[in-house]
Amino acid sequence: MFQCIGYAAPDATTPLAPFSFERRDPGPHDIQIEILYCGVCHSDLHQTRNDWFNSLFPMVPGHEIIGRVVRVGAQVTKLKVGDVAGVGCMVDSCRRCVACTADLEQYCVEGPTPTYNGRERGSDALTFGGYSDQIVVEQRFVVKIPDTLDLKAAAPLLCAGITTYSPLKHWKVGPGQKVGVIGLGGLGHMGVKFARAMGASVTMITTSPEKGKDALRLGANEVLVSRDAAAMEKARGSFDFLLNTVPVGHDMNPYAALLKIDGTMTLVGALTALDPLMGFNLIMGRKSIAGSSIGGMVETQEMIDFCAAHNIVSDIEMIDIADINAAYERMLKNDVKYRFVIDMASLKKAAAAA
Amino acid sequence: MFQCIGYAAPDATTPLAPFSFERRDPGPHDIQIEILYCGVCHSDLHQTRNDWFNSLFPMVPGHEIIGRVVRVGAQVTKLKVGDVAGVGCMVDSCRRCVACTADLEQYCVEGPTPTYNGRERGSDALTFGGYSDQIVVEQRFVVKIPDTLDLKAAAPLLCAGITTYSPLKHWKVGPGQKVGVIGLGGLGHMGVKFARAMGASVTMITTSPEKGKDALRLGANEVLVSRDAAAMEKARGSFDFLLNTVPVGHDMNPYAALLKIDGTMTLVGALTALDPLMGFNLIMGRKSIAGSSIGGMVETQEMIDFCAAHNIVSDIEMIDIADINAAYERMLKNDVKYRFVIDMASLKKAAAAA
Repeated sequence: MFQCIGYAAPDATTPLAPFSFERRDPGPHDIQIEILYCGVCHSDLHQTRNDWFNSLFPMVPGHEIIGRVVRVGAQVTKLKVGDVAGVGCMVDSCRRCVACTADLEQYCVEGPTPTYNGRERGSDALTFGGYSDQIVVEQRFVVKIPDTLDLKAAAPLLCAGITTYSPLKHWKVGPGQKVGVIGLGGLGHMGVKFARAMGASVTMITTSPEKGKDALRLGANEVLVSRDAAAMEKARGSFDFLLNTVPVGHDMNPYAALLKIDGTMTLVGALTALDPLMGFNLIMGRKSIAGSSIGGMVETQEMIDFCAAHNIVSDIEMIDIADINAAYERMLKNDVKYRFVIDMASLKKAAAAA
Repeated sequence: MFQCIGYAAPDATTPLAPFSFERRDPGPHDIQIEILYCGVCHSDLHQTRNDWFNSLFPMVPGHEIIGRVVRVGAQVTKLKVGDVAGVGCMVDSCRRCVACTADLEQYCVEGPTPTYNGRERGSDALTFGGYSDQIVVEQRFVVKIPDTLDLKAAAPLLCAGITTYSPLKHWKVGPGQKVGVIGLGGLGHMGVKFARAMGASVTMITTSPEKGKDALRLGANEVLVSRDAAAMEKARGSFDFLLNTVPVGHDMNPYAALLKIDGTMTLVGALTALDPLMGFNLIMGRKSIAGSSIGGMVETQEMIDFCAAHNIVSDIEMIDIADINAAYERMLKNDVKYRFVIDMASLKKAAAAA
């Protein structure tokens, strides 16, 4: 065991503050990483406030982790000391089930072990995430980050990136296709970049003309304002694929109308109850509504390599860890373009001041 | 024009009664059919009562039509006088759009012309369906029925048959797969027969243990009673494909839980509003909910030929046309196994008695 410092939510109501804890020494298959940057996912905010009623405290959030390898176990072949490593939403899974053996650890039948707000397999020990100076992760759940990427801006790739890349690949988005990305936030802005890089014609579908303008800057070919009834009617039946990044329950019927025959809309954000869907809107056109969760570890490495090849990173705003509670407040107002990333060098300063 | 007799709903509240009307003489591409049998679809009941607020009166229902060809236009090559013909839910479409040119006339961008409760293309004339002695249909929308099929029991294939066959084929149901058919009625009982003939292991998923028993007789390998919470939990994550024939709004969440990773549930019955779906139930497992409407004309012929090869017809109860109003009352109580079929020879008698 070795000592770590982190920034933790002690319970659901107290703001995050410095926190000391122990991590396991790296075993033969483990990689110890000194964390450089950690992205701030919307789920961090929800989990620290127990919005989903499954929070475990104390909680060190963070699952968009970029760091430098400082120590590796004897059996580690994937990375070596000095390499840049990435860790996303999972740090373990059963590795035996139908999902794990198909490199779909995110759908592990037993449930993957979350990077934070979970318990280590076969133990009561809580998992602690990336708002900390170090982390130890089994090599299967670590990806290699090419030095050519802007490392700060690469952090959100580990969650927002893979969450949007995976469905675009699975549903074979590519040249000649018209793809809509619904919602412009941390996920949506990555969806635009990926769909465009995959060769599709990309439309940002948003409630806000202002966001639409920014989507064009990010690479969208067109903007469709979903509150513009005439524009929505004109776009009826024109999309091969829709990536729906809306993070809350909403009415999917107007979006289903945008799909071509045999088109699919994939939800990546809305975990909770959606408004009643009219069966007619799927039956008339053999349309599908699907869901997708992050991606497996092999695919996460593939996504990172795709980003390196296409020079894709997130649009970010850097913060110090001491600013995390204020950052959450801004996220609640959608006041971030498009992801906060914590400079983890600020952690020692914050811990010393505490 | 030539004179026909039919059985019509004069308005949404008066029972069906004898009705005289004219049909067009067959043009060069038309086939004139003397109707032998007509299946009674649930939609007949809804349309005659204007339950969907789109009914056009007077209405001659019926879109599960089997008859003998009595006259063909000069350009007709598909069938000849004396052949047995089938007509389903459509009698025309635009024939130019992306759907029609892909043999998916059911998804015609302009909307296909329904066999009844529609208007002939380029005309105000109402279309009149199969509760009548004769019909004239362009050859593209007529299929050839092999003499080897039980013609009475073949009538429901034209709607209930193709509605279930098409999604099972589209989603590639076959050997090694576990397929669930939700709901045992006119559609569900055909779904069981087709999925089994395609080589899948078939589970009837029903609220009623009694119906479950009958499903085994129809070819289901297993029964899952959806009100049995322990059985539903045990079946979690075990189905490759679910054919959902429930004809009304319902909670899809318990069924989504039955799907394997990447599994699909396809709706063929529920046109109206469904209960709120939890996004989580699709996102965790990359699952899909889709819809499907009847099938194109090429596929309808393929389905008929599949039925001939596998000796598949519907389970039916024959009625005289004079009993149609009583039959509707029984259908409202689900008191039919599994489709009423009208012996159209009874029509002249009913008309004479009127």
